[in-house]
Amino acid sequence: MGRRKKGWMALADEGSLLCVIVLWGTMLLGCRGVNGGGCMKYNTGGGAVEGKLNVHLVPHSHDDVGWLKTIDQYYVGSNNSIQGACVENTIDSIVEALLRDPNRKFIYAEMAFFERWWTTQSPEIQYEVKKLVESGQLEFVNGGWCMHDEATVHYIDMIDQTTLGHRLIKENFDKAPRAGWQIDPFGHSAVQGYLLGAELGFSSVHFARIDYQDRAKRKADKALEVVWQGSYTFGSSSQIFANAFPVHYSPPAGFSFEVSNLYVPVQDNPLLFDYNVQQRVDDFVSAAISQANVTRTNHIMWTMGDDFQYQYAESWFKQMDKLIHYVRKDGRVNALYSTPSLYTDAKNGENISWPLKTDDYFPYADHQNAYWTGYFTSRPALKRYVRMLSGYYLAARELEFLVGKRSAGPSTYSLGDALGIAQHHDSITGTARQHTTDDYAKRLAIGATEAGTAVNDALLCLISNKTGQCQAPSSTFSQCQLLNISYCPVTEKDIPEGKSLVVVAYNPLGWNRTDIVRIPVNDMNLVVKSSTGSIIETQFVEIDDVNVNLRNLYTKAYLGTSPAETPKYWLLFQVSLPPLGWNTYFVSNSITKGESKREFVTLSNQQQNDTIEIGKGNLKMWFSSSSGQLVRMYNNRTGVDVPVQQSYMYYRSSSGDTDPQASGAYIFRPDGVVSTIISQSVPLEVIRGPLVDEVHQQFDSWIYQVTRLYKDQEHAEVEFTIGPIPVNDSVGKEVITRMTANMVTDSVFYTDSNGRDFLKRVRNYRQDWPLTVTQPVAGNYYPINLGIYIKDQKTEFSVLVDRAAGGASIKDGEIELMLHRRTLYDDSRGVGEPLDENVCSGEYTCDGLVVRGNYYISIDRIGGGALWRRKTGQEIYSPIILAFTHENSEVWSASHLTRGTTMDPGYSLPLNIALITLQELDDGSVLLRLAHLFEAGEDVSFSTLAKVELKRMFAGKTIKKLKEMSLSANQEKSEMKRMTWKVEGDTGGSQPAPVQGGPVDNSTLVVELGPMEIRTFMLNF
Amino acid sequence: MGRRKKGWMALADEGSLLCVIVLWGTMLLGCRGVNGGGCMKYNTGGGAVEGKLNVHLVPHSHDDVGWLKTIDQYYVGSNNSIQGACVENTIDSIVEALLRDPNRKFIYAEMAFFERWWTTQSPEIQYEVKKLVESGQLEFVNGGWCMHDEATVHYIDMIDQTTLGHRLIKENFDKAPRAGWQIDPFGHSAVQGYLLGAELGFSSVHFARIDYQDRAKRKADKALEVVWQGSYTFGSSSQIFANAFPVHYSPPAGFSFEVSNLYVPVQDNPLLFDYNVQQRVDDFVSAAISQANVTRTNHIMWTMGDDFQYQYAESWFKQMDKLIHYVRKDGRVNALYSTPSLYTDAKNGENISWPLKTDDYFPYADHQNAYWTGYFTSRPALKRYVRMLSGYYLAARELEFLVGKRSAGPSTYSLGDALGIAQHHDSITGTARQHTTDDYAKRLAIGATEAGTAVNDALLCLISNKTGQCQAPSSTFSQCQLLNISYCPVTEKDIPEGKSLVVVAYNPLGWNRTDIVRIPVNDMNLVVKSSTGSIIETQFVEIDDVNVNLRNLYTKAYLGTSPAETPKYWLLFQVSLPPLGWNTYFVSNSITKGESKREFVTLSNQQQNDTIEIGKGNLKMWFSSSSGQLVRMYNNRTGVDVPVQQSYMYYRSSSGDTDPQASGAYIFRPDGVVSTIISQSVPLEVIRGPLVDEVHQQFDSWIYQVTRLYKDQEHAEVEFTIGPIPVNDSVGKEVITRMTANMVTDSVFYTDSNGRDFLKRVRNYRQDWPLTVTQPVAGNYYPINLGIYIKDQKTEFSVLVDRAAGGASIKDGEIELMLHRRTLYDDSRGVGEPLDENVCSGEYTCDGLVVRGNYYISIDRIGGGALWRRKTGQEIYSPIILAFTHENSEVWSASHLTRGTTMDPGYSLPLNIALITLQELDDGSVLLRLAHLFEAGEDVSFSTLAKVELKRMFAGKTIKKLKEMSLSANQEKSEMKRMTWKVEGDTGGSQPAPVQGGPVDNSTLVVELGPMEIRTFMLNF
Repeated sequence: MGRRKKGWMALADEGSLLCVIVLWGTMLLGCRGVNGGGCMKYNTGGGAVEGKLNVHLVPHSHDDVGWLKTIDQYYVGSNNSIQGACVENTIDSIVEALLRDPNRKFIYAEMAFFERWWTTQSPEIQYEVKKLVESGQLEFVNGGWCMHDEATVHYIDMIDQTTLGHRLIKENFDKAPRAGWQIDPFGHSAVQGYLLGAELGFSSVHFARIDYQDRAKRKADKALEVVWQGSYTFGSSSQIFANAFPVHYSPPAGFSFEVSNLYVPVQDNPLLFDYNVQQRVDDFVSAAISQANVTRTNHIMWTMGDDFQYQYAESWFKQMDKLIHYVRKDGRVNALYSTPSLYTDAKNGENISWPLKTDDYFPYADHQNAYWTGYFTSRPALKRYVRMLSGYYLAARELEFLVGKRSAGPSTYSLGDALGIAQHHDSITGTARQHTTDDYAKRLAIGATEAGTAVNDALLCLISNKTGQCQAPSSTFSQCQLLNISYCPVTEKDIPEGKSLVVVAYNPLGWNRTDIVRIPVNDMNLVVKSSTGSIIETQFVEIDDVNVNLRNLYTKAYLGTSPAETPKYWLLFQVSLPPLGWNTYFVSNSITKGESKREFVTLSNQQQNDTIEIGKGNLKMWFSSSSGQLVRMYNNRTGVDVPVQQSYMYYRSSSGDTDPQASGAYIFRPDGVVSTIISQSVPLEVIRGPLVDEVHQQFDSWIYQVTRLYKDQEHAEVEFTIGPIPVNDSVGKEVITRMTANMVTDSVFYTDSNGRDFLKRVRNYRQDWPLTVTQPVAGNYYPINLGIYIKDQKTEFSVLVDRAAGGASIKDGEIELMLHRRTLYDDSRGVGEPLDENVCSGEYTCDGLVVRGNYYISIDRIGGGALWRRKTGQEIYSPIILAFTHENSEVWSASHLTRGTTMDPGYSLPLNIALITLQELDDGSVLLRLAHLFEAGEDVSFSTLAKVELKRMFAGKTIKKLKEMSLSANQEKSEMKRMTWKVEGDTGGSQPAPVQGGPVDNSTLVVELGPMEIRTFMLNF
Repeated sequence: MGRRKKGWMALADEGSLLCVIVLWGTMLLGCRGVNGGGCMKYNTGGGAVEGKLNVHLVPHSHDDVGWLKTIDQYYVGSNNSIQGACVENTIDSIVEALLRDPNRKFIYAEMAFFERWWTTQSPEIQYEVKKLVESGQLEFVNGGWCMHDEATVHYIDMIDQTTLGHRLIKENFDKAPRAGWQIDPFGHSAVQGYLLGAELGFSSVHFARIDYQDRAKRKADKALEVVWQGSYTFGSSSQIFANAFPVHYSPPAGFSFEVSNLYVPVQDNPLLFDYNVQQRVDDFVSAAISQANVTRTNHIMWTMGDDFQYQYAESWFKQMDKLIHYVRKDGRVNALYSTPSLYTDAKNGENISWPLKTDDYFPYADHQNAYWTGYFTSRPALKRYVRMLSGYYLAARELEFLVGKRSAGPSTYSLGDALGIAQHHDSITGTARQHTTDDYAKRLAIGATEAGTAVNDALLCLISNKTGQCQAPSSTFSQCQLLNISYCPVTEKDIPEGKSLVVVAYNPLGWNRTDIVRIPVNDMNLVVKSSTGSIIETQFVEIDDVNVNLRNLYTKAYLGTSPAETPKYWLLFQVSLPPLGWNTYFVSNSITKGESKREFVTLSNQQQNDTIEIGKGNLKMWFSSSSGQLVRMYNNRTGVDVPVQQSYMYYRSSSGDTDPQASGAYIFRPDGVVSTIISQSVPLEVIRGPLVDEVHQQFDSWIYQVTRLYKDQEHAEVEFTIGPIPVNDSVGKEVITRMTANMVTDSVFYTDSNGRDFLKRVRNYRQDWPLTVTQPVAGNYYPINLGIYIKDQKTEFSVLVDRAAGGASIKDGEIELMLHRRTLYDDSRGVGEPLDENVCSGEYTCDGLVVRGNYYISIDRIGGGALWRRKTGQEIYSPIILAFTHENSEVWSASHLTRGTTMDPGYSLPLNIALITLQELDDGSVLLRLAHLFEAGEDVSFSTLAKVELKRMFAGKTIKKLKEMSLSANQEKSEMKRMTWKVEGDTGGSQPAPVQGGPVDNSTLVVELGPMEIRTFMLNF
């Protein structure tokens, strides 16, 4: 209020203020019709009418947080040659239009845009907008930073970006959105339904895109609207009303009133020519009845808007005012301004039973040859960048909290902002234009750089042994974001005389962990000492040519530097870290040389059955001496033994045929069903050492693979380097890795939902309708964020990923992941560009993008895979943070704590609990989220109630206040309303309640979590 | 105020009302820039800065009153597939944008649109808009009903349509526009400059379209801005500051900010990407300096708008706010919101000398082959319809006044409205699309029908001999709008037994007049009696086949009727009418047959020098017996004898060649310079009678001409019937009549300006620049509204027209008029249709439009032509009103005054004075305009001070109050401000003041008028 007063209190005393508020609405009231020669006020405030068909007009603008243009171009309205869109106009004019008539309503979803607008408004306008929100004229729906994708995003990112928006709404408007509004994402995930829906306090979610066969059946059954129980674990305790639109998120044909659109306006001035009220009313009634015929109850919703509409909102409202007025007057049906919440209230009020929907709405197809399963993989480098920074953001916020957030200086905010934007359904999906994608990457890079500084500062502060002396210069530490291509200047440099390379490793997990660290160095005369001074085991691996070339090309392309020297070796050593803690390692010059062992295997036809075994630990892999291919995996400890092959293949992207549908950014349409195998025999280069065994294989000039089996791990890490995908044959290609295990899997495989729940998939089958199979490959692809597995009677074969990707099991025993795509045609869904990523090292030196990444394979006894998948998945998501500097190790040790945990020493979180948010907010309160990682029944030992002792977790700090919150922390959990819905066929017999934690006792402060439970707390220390 | 209170007084008492007004501006204030993270108020209120280049940003929207769409389609925004334009959006959003910031300004011109908007607004909004106008934020420019054309409109129509708008402004806003804003019309007339400029109280006029050669020279000379003295008679006493824009009426390239436009927005939020303030400021400064280089003084104007822009006004103002703010901050130049008036004030304040401009800006060319002289003739039927109704509107308002205007029932308002719209520069010009043209015609027809009813009622009232008993049924009288094609059901019918056809003729002129009336009848057994009962002379002329066919086709096409019978004869008789008075004639059945004499002349080669003489009165015409062509005219009384030929020819419309410019609706581009003669020899049919001699000639199957020489007239009336113009050779054609007199005319000819002043034209010459002749025909065409004449040492050869047309004298002694055009290509100036008028008598039976009309030829002694032209011109403009009914003549005479004048009997206006407006306004006051018809020196006797005795003119009425007003009656003449301008080369020697009337003495009430003077009075009786 302090700021608001500045603006106009000079002109008016408090009394006048009151009168302005009272009169405001009235002053702007427009009446436009001519009724006997004067002006006429339209009757639009009547609400729903019982016994009549009620058409809920829901005015909205679908504002993509970047797509054909960048977010800022959309906001300010630049680059309009690409797309005429200016979100500032939209919000400006909506506010004006709403102020004009208190009956009008509007919903807004994308807070990244709204924030841009809000922060540039005068206190006077902010005040008016607050009143609009308060009165319900302006309602926020979804309310996240963006309308996130649902296939390629991680649930932690979904929560974070939603929280960002919900907190803004809460802080400025004291409101919590009530409706999910996922109108555009290309299919809908189970996690969206139950977690980013019900657990946010939403009573409904609304969307346009479901499979065309599904839609047809649902229309026939009046089953577009359902009660959706997305969680197997939670069942009916976490359900939501889900409304799939009958056509799209635009209005019925002829009822779009954008200022630049073609439409027939309601001409109701009898003094002008072409009076057409009856005709337009008839059109309206006819469209309403047609929709009523596929909808249950007397309430239907019309989504009055489209992409970047309401550039001049009055253009819409003027027509809607008239339609509501004259349709009401006509009396056959009723029309009203509404919102998804009000619509849902009306639906709920009817008290009928609804069809039940479980699982998810993937994959999405809008046509027989148009399965939107390409975007599961499109732009794999961007997908990896987002995932990598997602984990980093979590760790960085932990550190910010642990040392106390600063009010100024570098922070994690811009990274959170950039990540929020990156979750948009045209960002991480890979379906934005290239220049927009570059913009996303740029924002992420800026955010990561700033967060990096914040992390350096915090880390220095955390490990300083002088409490409270945290103001160390931020330049002291270096981190290396490009370690994956062996670019890390600080470690490559010669270590100055008398100093060591100090390596501080921070563990963002709540568990103890060990891991192998790999850093590029220039020579082998190095020794690594632990924080206690003892020399620890190292391994040197020569950096291969593929890596060197990649490093040279990409540092030039993206950093503009061409390092004179390239490091020769990877230095490997094992680190051991306490939970939410750190350890320090000192790399020093030495007179003794380290060791590097390489072994080239020449393939020979003579010894067809000969194999080569690798594996430092329990897991062993055998490769054929003749073909070089993987033939078998075996786990020493469990005895699990699986014959398995692995190869790289590609699908030829369809460029269209009798159906012109091409494969592109959104759509995966292979030209035929058969994939092309890239190499039948692959020479092996085997590197063995004390910490890791590696198999290097060049499948083709553009596919390189390294398989690594680490000392203390029971899984294989596979690093792929794919690209530039050759297209000189004018054929786009979609590259997969396929693992073929000798298992009988009965068409069944399992894929995760947003990295959280695993869903059962059945090949060529849908639970909700009898599937007509038109695309036997693309139609069986599902999004993978955590992993995919198959099982038979005794074995589970699991693969985890390091980013979002498409995956499938096209034949029994098979698992395939799509790792990279390059297409030469646009797939006609709007982006207008083929998905043809290039990287340029000079102005004219461009080639297809090379993508590098990892996936992880494990074989487990039946029932044993979950533990590996859950724990390893969390470790992949939250890698160790490494910070480097040069210092004399004794000087360093004297002034720093070289090893420590921020928890009570000896305490760690149970293995089934992950810390997924720990963040100090601007007001000093702390946001804590804990997630149980297991589903009900997933693991005998771990699918159980688990406990976290907050007092031990936050050792040395005192929790003064604890409030349990909704998932997005915008309301207290106890205040969250849940709507009751009746489900068809529900006989009233109660399902067993899921195991869930009870209320937190304020004295013990122990948090219990049942399977899959996520609990959100606001703490004050 | 009464109505306003209703809206919101219920909510607030008077005290609160005050506070709302005070706070209103503040509440909506926007600040949008981010300045250090908050919102920023742009500094846009600083005004001009002395010593700096001041860029006056003049926000405007050019809203054509019909063009590609109809006026109502433009207003409501329908038919947007043709053009995205909704004027309601424009005005709505302008008001919002102006309320947002009191520094913003906007100008609006077209009151036909504004009226549509204004009448549908709530009292609250009307109140706000009044304040905007009061404060000068919203300024009306031009302020007429439309932005009228300047080539094809009559000055009386210009005055009427301007008055319509100015009165609306005066009544609702108590304002008088200060600036002329003729930005789009295709050339500019002298009458516009001095009469519809200076005499309206305008201090400036602004326009975009001047000849491209003229513009180039003026830019080089910094002479785009001039002091324009359009009147030879008035000279410097009626001058105006005229501002021709350097390019067009749009902003400099890159500064158009329409919501749907492509432009680079000023991105001044440092928190977003692509901050570009300096770049945009540099662009601005550079564009400003470039314009300053062709402009005198430190003030330049940017016209910030274009056709139908400001669909969402905020889009413009947002950018302009920023530009003004940052340009001022930059400091190199200054920028400000301005209007043409403020700009003119600034120019005037500089007190420098300006170039002098006399005459007009015709013809307009925008390219060497693009002379906009086609539209002088385009759509000749529409042009005639407008002119015919213009005269009718004058007469109808007289009658309305004479009997006292009724508050309800049919009136002349809708005709005035339709005529106001029809003056638009894409309406009467013929440059609108066909469907829009149909809309204009429809409005005119509706207006004419209603006015016809009003005229019938008034006439019945006027001639009733029972004073005050005027409420006669309106159906008693019939009028016949289609007399020109012999369609008049009431006269064609058999006269019922015992009754007569009563013909009441009303004379709208202030003079006595006689005229020949022609009505279609079915037989020759008719006799005509005067009001005194005496039989008067009649003549029967058989209706020819051309007429019959035309009648049948066009009644079917436009009335949907196919009359079973066609009348056989024209019945002619002479009527004699007092000024502003009437006379009655009775046509009765008779046993004696009238007479009709026809004479067919077969052309014979043998008698080459034989001629046929016709002529009832002083004027004789000789036609060749061998070719049928006119060979000589001779006036018995004056002895003037001129050998003269006449023929029909056509120019082949260019379809483009190396220059793709085609001839079309706007542009006349003949294919070569030679016209094709249509017939070398034309058979004659001669009809002689007591009242008229007629020569009928069929020049081709599609050209028919009747030449008439009446008993008491000294001129020839030529009726042409042209069409369908054949285009089966795929060549468009532009048809002319050419008269070739044996006269030495030294390249000089004279054409009128809007039917008022005559201007000297010199072939292949321009006064203002050395003309490069590129189009020897099209470039010498000028608009004709009244007439065209040539003269030599002793003779004047004059031609008057019945509508606007293009005319020229391409060779000495020649006069040509373009009478009809049909082109097959669009001429690329936006209309997007060829000018190919068709008429359809059935769904699929269409052919080119046939056009019928008259022109009038006179030969006079040198110095004697003016009197004929002025008097005859006025008679052509104001024909007799004929009303018909059937009644027993004695019964009629007993109950009606059969002859009378509304003036003092015996009084009439002097021949050099025309009554051009007599209209009772809604408030009961009466608008009177009197016009002196002669220019200074034009006629020895009549170019003199003339007097009108109002007391005698308004006999039987008492003038209680008389106020002399500005031309548009929106301010008292005494209050009209005239700006003083210095003219280059003016040595300060005073020009002789024009002869003008003095103030009107309130007791004598005698109005004096000097040559060309028009005086406007508001009277109260």
